[in-house]
Amino acid sequence: MDAPSKPGSTFTPANPDFAKRVRASFARQGVMAHIGAELSLVEAGRVQIRLPYSERLSQQHGFFHGGITTTIADSACGYSGFTLMPADASVLTIEYKVNFLAPADGELLVANGHVVKPGRNIIVCHADVMVRKGASERICATMTETIMVMPGLEEKT
Amino acid sequence: MDAPSKPGSTFTPANPDFAKRVRASFARQGVMAHIGAELSLVEAGRVQIRLPYSERLSQQHGFFHGGITTTIADSACGYSGFTLMPADASVLTIEYKVNFLAPADGELLVANGHVVKPGRNIIVCHADVMVRKGASERICATMTETIMVMPGLEEKT
Amino acid sequence: MDAPSKPGSTFTPANPDFAKRVRASFARQGVMAHIGAELSLVEAGRVQIRLPYSERLSQQHGFFHGGITTTIADSACGYSGFTLMPADASVLTIEYKVNFLAPADGELLVANGHVVKPGRNIIVCHADVMVRKGASERICATMTETIMVMPGLEEKT
Amino acid sequence: MDAPSKPGSTFTPANPDFAKRVRASFARQGVMAHIGAELSLVEAGRVQIRLPYSERLSQQHGFFHGGITTTIADSACGYSGFTLMPADASVLTIEYKVNFLAPADGELLVANGHVVKPGRNIIVCHADVMVRKGASERICATMTETIMVMPGLEEKT
Repeated sequence: MDAPSKPGSTFTPANPDFAKRVRASFARQGVMAHIGAELSLVEAGRVQIRLPYSERLSQQHGFFHGGITTTIADSACGYSGFTLMPADASVLTIEYKVNFLAPADGELLVANGHVVKPGRNIIVCHADVMVRKGASERICATMTETIMVMPGLEEKT
Repeated sequence: MDAPSKPGSTFTPANPDFAKRVRASFARQGVMAHIGAELSLVEAGRVQIRLPYSERLSQQHGFFHGGITTTIADSACGYSGFTLMPADASVLTIEYKVNFLAPADGELLVANGHVVKPGRNIIVCHADVMVRKGASERICATMTETIMVMPGLEEKT
Repeated sequence: MDAPSKPGSTFTPANPDFAKRVRASFARQGVMAHIGAELSLVEAGRVQIRLPYSERLSQQHGFFHGGITTTIADSACGYSGFTLMPADASVLTIEYKVNFLAPADGELLVANGHVVKPGRNIIVCHADVMVRKGASERICATMTETIMVMPGLEEKT
Repeated sequence: MDAPSKPGSTFTPANPDFAKRVRASFARQGVMAHIGAELSLVEAGRVQIRLPYSERLSQQHGFFHGGITTTIADSACGYSGFTLMPADASVLTIEYKVNFLAPADGELLVANGHVVKPGRNIIVCHADVMVRKGASERICATMTETIMVMPGLEEKT
């Protein structure tokens, strides 16, 4: 790769069934149903997750809790990397870093994850999380995540 | 401060009612009840949060989702800093970084947050998250968090 | 701000003399001369620093040391934020995070820093560092940095 | 490992010649000589680097530049992990995160790196950097670093 990947970059997935695999894995994440998150986009190197507001997701001022914002950003990053992995590999999150840019005050969060740097062993991903309130939308968090490709740990579909 | 704070460090809180304030704020975090987290310790500069396992908190392999591990570590860090703030201030999370050291495979998570560096404007905190499985306990995640003291934004108690 | 800032975003600097201030401050950073770094671009919200290779900057395999890559990325981020600050303020780096995406193997590093989220107290910046080797150029590191605006700490020019 | 490693933890190195290997690799890092850093301690899982002040290492206020503080913290972390690697492996830095806790204002920096979580593929390390000024010493920066074990990339000694 000669330049950083942007959300519009084109990747060639190793597994043509990547979208089916991501959807099946997402469905096994019990926490996604528990918080009410939906997988709204799966493309090669790119995943979007949406989360409507509920008081059950709030911090002390009534906004989305930062950990919940992180939870959907984490899955958006991890699955964006997972789309590029071979069929017999699994994803392991090594670490991530989140900056909170504005209060997550609104009725919907949208996390857009994409691959910044693909790799055989290590994949670096990025996610921006937008918060929608009425007609306005603004960024509330930005994440950089490092994931590891775990060969021989096929997830069942 | 001439040395990094350790969990055993002694801090002098600016507000003698800090524990009551933290408990009231924690109770307003809707997400803590929704995931089943309990505030198990509040001391000056130090907060512990515990979270029993449930399938509703899982990632695709059945372990605690990394975002949920992060959610309790975030609150443990933020509230450890909040214990040292004046009565008319509120806490704002600027950013955090999490390294995942082992799968969060077990029946209980325990997040221990403490203040590393107090400050009038900026406080840096650290949390280790332990996972218990039967008789064993091991670290599964470690977080560094930066919070900001927001004066004049008193939280109601 | 309703969307994350991109390198091409337009910012309105609080101090029309921002470029002169950045150049004077850069000239006071003794380390920049010591490693041979040059300030190659200063715009509102955007700074570029270039660094030719020397064996005196190497790690054990002969590439640029990661700490040196970080040093120019740090200054590129910090000064991109400094361009937007009022004339009586100084910049303080709170924290940063760097991912190394490829070996810094080449004859020139180019760090492009820009403001992601301006603010009165806290500014979040981003830098990508490219490494040039012959006719090729690729990203080798990416940084997110949080800086603080320190009012009343005017830097001399 | 059932608990997070502390600086005093005992590790069993895979290569009994680890100290010789670290010293040889450090000597090949051209930047360490260029900035004047010394390797002052090498133990299994633990490395210390010291750096006397010079104006050639300064930021705009005359303190150590944050990138230089990072440079010795990075090598202290990386080499603490390298002490535990087999003889035919090399170290690759994946990422790190630094929080700056106080101005690096003094005549000496001392970076203490240690392994937090050893592993066959991934090692997580931590470093605190202390700054000495006259008779006082205080922490000025804290780093978490993730490194990768690169098998089959033996460094020459």
